[in-house]
Amino acid sequence: MDTLTVALGDRSYPIHIGANLLANPDLLRPHLKSSQVCVVTNTTVAPLYLDKVKAALGGMQVRTVILADGENHKTLETVSAIYDQLLEANFSRSCTLIALGGGVIGDMTGFAAATYQRGVNFIQIPTTLLSQVDSSVGGKTGVNRPLGKNMVGAFFQPRVVLADTATLDTLPDRELRAGLAEIIKYGLINNRAFYDWLWQNMPPLLARDPAALRYAIKVSCEEKAAIVSVDETEGGLRAILNLGHTFGYAIETAMGYGTWLHGEAVATGMVMAADLSWRLGYLPQADAQAIKALVAAAELPVVPPAIDEATFLRLMGKDKKADQGKMKFILLKAIGSATIEQDIPQQLLQRTLLAGTELTR
Amino acid sequence: MDTLTVALGDRSYPIHIGANLLANPDLLRPHLKSSQVCVVTNTTVAPLYLDKVKAALGGMQVRTVILADGENHKTLETVSAIYDQLLEANFSRSCTLIALGGGVIGDMTGFAAATYQRGVNFIQIPTTLLSQVDSSVGGKTGVNRPLGKNMVGAFFQPRVVLADTATLDTLPDRELRAGLAEIIKYGLINNRAFYDWLWQNMPPLLARDPAALRYAIKVSCEEKAAIVSVDETEGGLRAILNLGHTFGYAIETAMGYGTWLHGEAVATGMVMAADLSWRLGYLPQADAQAIKALVAAAELPVVPPAIDEATFLRLMGKDKKADQGKMKFILLKAIGSATIEQDIPQQLLQRTLLAGTELTR
Repeated sequence: MDTLTVALGDRSYPIHIGANLLANPDLLRPHLKSSQVCVVTNTTVAPLYLDKVKAALGGMQVRTVILADGENHKTLETVSAIYDQLLEANFSRSCTLIALGGGVIGDMTGFAAATYQRGVNFIQIPTTLLSQVDSSVGGKTGVNRPLGKNMVGAFFQPRVVLADTATLDTLPDRELRAGLAEIIKYGLINNRAFYDWLWQNMPPLLARDPAALRYAIKVSCEEKAAIVSVDETEGGLRAILNLGHTFGYAIETAMGYGTWLHGEAVATGMVMAADLSWRLGYLPQADAQAIKALVAAAELPVVPPAIDEATFLRLMGKDKKADQGKMKFILLKAIGSATIEQDIPQQLLQRTLLAGTELTR
Repeated sequence: MDTLTVALGDRSYPIHIGANLLANPDLLRPHLKSSQVCVVTNTTVAPLYLDKVKAALGGMQVRTVILADGENHKTLETVSAIYDQLLEANFSRSCTLIALGGGVIGDMTGFAAATYQRGVNFIQIPTTLLSQVDSSVGGKTGVNRPLGKNMVGAFFQPRVVLADTATLDTLPDRELRAGLAEIIKYGLINNRAFYDWLWQNMPPLLARDPAALRYAIKVSCEEKAAIVSVDETEGGLRAILNLGHTFGYAIETAMGYGTWLHGEAVATGMVMAADLSWRLGYLPQADAQAIKALVAAAELPVVPPAIDEATFLRLMGKDKKADQGKMKFILLKAIGSATIEQDIPQQLLQRTLLAGTELTR
């Protein structure tokens, strides 16, 4: 088991990474505040892992909330159902909420924990590759609104994260690849050596080699933890974690939540960000092409779906990363070095939008 | 104008108290983060003060959200309507929400500000006596659920509070008295001299004497600010601010939100807490009687409505102040000195519940 710490003063917490952690009572119990524990999971994950987690919580007053699976359920209505289960059970301010599942479960359970009785104890057991390398670090919680994704939420840190790599054995191929998108991102924004490692290790990662996955998760969490420690609430630097996300956000929203997986949209968004970086003269064309090839090697989409330009621009402007209508772009100065830019020439942006496939011509 | 500071490190903020402050641009504008401003108010307050606030915001991009008036609208559904107005206007993370109204408007607008895009700028202009002395200090925001009051929320501090005493001229008598309940509370829990001052000054307060009101608001805010500075998230000491609230909460819930005003329920709750303090031997009977007389002098109810004992106890146990079913009581060791107690003998509690009128027999 590897353990790293997200350093946030009195909100610091450990992330444990390894196989079969979720059944280990010694990793869970020290972080409870009372015997009142509510495990929130979904209909896909519950049959696989819920009994193991409950066994690790033997003797506690355990409630379970099993939600429908999918991003389209990431709503205030679903969070309200969690609140009401806690109220029915008379759960107090000293209770603990455990998120057992992927990013959607983590985001909603975290937001419920941030707001139930103005904040209760929170533990994350992410069971997808994406949530292990992304949403388990940094405390972003929230839900969607019909007019925008993740538009309601809070910054709220868990007490501990158990990234159990054995849960990845049951992950569908498509979701595994979606997780690889965010892993590639960490190489692109801040770690050239890791990017090079990914070029060498994409086949074992796709084949779910445990050692390769564990290393990739560890480096990804370290990279994100370092950035979040400097800028918890995204006042500046943290925005580089959104590489590919403004483009990706528009893709996800235009296609309807859940049609494209978040990681797939981010993958294509990163290729588009690299394309725009090349058009702006920041990045050699060869690097933009190599990035596209690495994303393709992870069997992720590199071309956006057919969305008309006006819709694409409108949706990008609705992204949280937009400040008073001014879109903020995360771009690459080099592989391993991200930059945050505003005031991108409209013409170059249009070319990136219209010519998703141009680099291969 | 009086100004005091709520000292909370980098979340510190000023409270300005005086007449006609809400029309003063110099008190508002320095606290905006961008030109995007949304004023949230209700149908009662809007015709009286909205135009003045909008005039003070001349040149800004001002949106207004006018909600129905009343505690029964303090719901996630109403907050969702605020979110969606902000999204429709493309309001970014640098926008500012201004709460113009009483505690319900402040609680909901504050919660919307705490959670819209994971937190945006927030300003409070409380227009009731209760909200000027209570909810404008301390950052408690939230909404009700059918199973419990204020069960969903966040701790979130405003940038500035404008307590405009001129707005009290239009306040209904019943709401003025409800505000006096919380003012009396500050004397009881922490300031014997203020309690004595209140005995002398209840007639001018009821007659809305501006100097008396301004002094009472200032001392109340100072008392609350001192407590909140020590214990922002109610880990311990802050709970003494809940004197009368566990009893009051049960009254409010049993009668249906809004039937009794919050201040009325707290008033009766304080009389009950004094009664229980006497039964426990903490307080001389004469002091308990004097407290009841002061509450009566403020023309506030001193006897709870007819609620059967089982219902009363069940609802008290649902209060947030209950920890794993163990009720926590705020009691008085003396006038001007509160204490937090658990494990109160059931028998004595029952006598207080059953004999709301006993002290007068």
